[in-house]
Amino acid sequence: MAQEEEEIVLLDYLPSPFGTMARIALVEKGINFIHKFEDLSNKSPLLLEMNPVHHKVPVLIHKGKSICESHIIIQYIDEIWKNNFTLLPSEPYQRAKARFLVDFINKKVHESSVKVWMGANEEQENGKKELVEWSKFLEGELGDKLYFGGDVFGFVDIALVPFYNWFIVFKIFANFNISECPKLVMWGERCLNRDSVSKSLPTSDQVYQAYLEFKKGWST
Amino acid sequence: MAQEEEEIVLLDYLPSPFGTMARIALVEKGINFIHKFEDLSNKSPLLLEMNPVHHKVPVLIHKGKSICESHIIIQYIDEIWKNNFTLLPSEPYQRAKARFLVDFINKKVHESSVKVWMGANEEQENGKKELVEWSKFLEGELGDKLYFGGDVFGFVDIALVPFYNWFIVFKIFANFNISECPKLVMWGERCLNRDSVSKSLPTSDQVYQAYLEFKKGWST
Repeated sequence: MAQEEEEIVLLDYLPSPFGTMARIALVEKGINFIHKFEDLSNKSPLLLEMNPVHHKVPVLIHKGKSICESHIIIQYIDEIWKNNFTLLPSEPYQRAKARFLVDFINKKVHESSVKVWMGANEEQENGKKELVEWSKFLEGELGDKLYFGGDVFGFVDIALVPFYNWFIVFKIFANFNISECPKLVMWGERCLNRDSVSKSLPTSDQVYQAYLEFKKGWST
Repeated sequence: MAQEEEEIVLLDYLPSPFGTMARIALVEKGINFIHKFEDLSNKSPLLLEMNPVHHKVPVLIHKGKSICESHIIIQYIDEIWKNNFTLLPSEPYQRAKARFLVDFINKKVHESSVKVWMGANEEQENGKKELVEWSKFLEGELGDKLYFGGDVFGFVDIALVPFYNWFIVFKIFANFNISECPKLVMWGERCLNRDSVSKSLPTSDQVYQAYLEFKKGWST
């Protein structure tokens, strides 16, 4: 029982950018966890019990209690497992700024990405234009730093890199490019080379296959 | 110059529930601030400069730097001005839970409230049904406690009470009631009796007048 209570479980779905964020945070902190992948067309009783409000992944289960919403999971991981470094900056203004950028990514970058995935013709083109605009804004926030928080990989990098991974897929099937943002591209490649990221990201092929599955679902 | 840098300014709009949250948090912490109310049909250059991404209130300006989004502002206030008490719980799981509930309120309760404000007939009825459902869920989370965090007024209370204030207006013009949630009503009245809340909330009449102004704006 005690062992069960100490178990750390992540309810997840491999292509989910929000699931990916939780995965990266756990790997960054060196946490061993049990990975349970969900079939989103037939959600498990455990997911329905642990996230009764939204029924969505990711859900982190720790000591029998659930933590939902990727940005809240990352902050929880950072507060519970200190391990001599933090994913969020320690200075309050920098923390507020990081929270703002993650909120921006989860809303704006996600919404525009969905338009590129799902939209046809004009809507897809609008999604691509918006993503270029958001990328320019984010490149401005990155500046000449290695990562958004400075020299150290952290909260904002974790939130953005799953979408950067989508951008690569968008290049293949929607002719999307962010060549106007060379610093952001360099940041993205730098992140992809990190163990925590490369171990956690789905491959472009897995992302694209999931998209085809979703699309098949809608048209039936 | 030093004095200007120390100035604390809140860019605000009286009927805004999100502005109200920032106000309550500042008053709870005993912070003196300069209150600048915005004309949302003619936003000030300061607002456009300080929130270049969303152009929305509330914005807290401290030491010349801006903090945007009400939930981020409240956490910033809590981290900067400790004053021997915190608005967020200190224990990580309770913090995660408070963040989840505030996120739920800002998304679900806000979205359903907008349906009651703006929607006609069926949409308004749906908004009312959803609000009763969310209120039951929130009442379950409140349980027999005085406030969401226990005996002490805090983050979740601050986020919910501006919407509770809307519920009172909805009763008048949309025949909305949450009599099925007596504990939540008692909680709401308890909050309304706090100085920080009663000083910060717009009156029902101010909220309703703002709604009529908005509605006039859409129909022209």
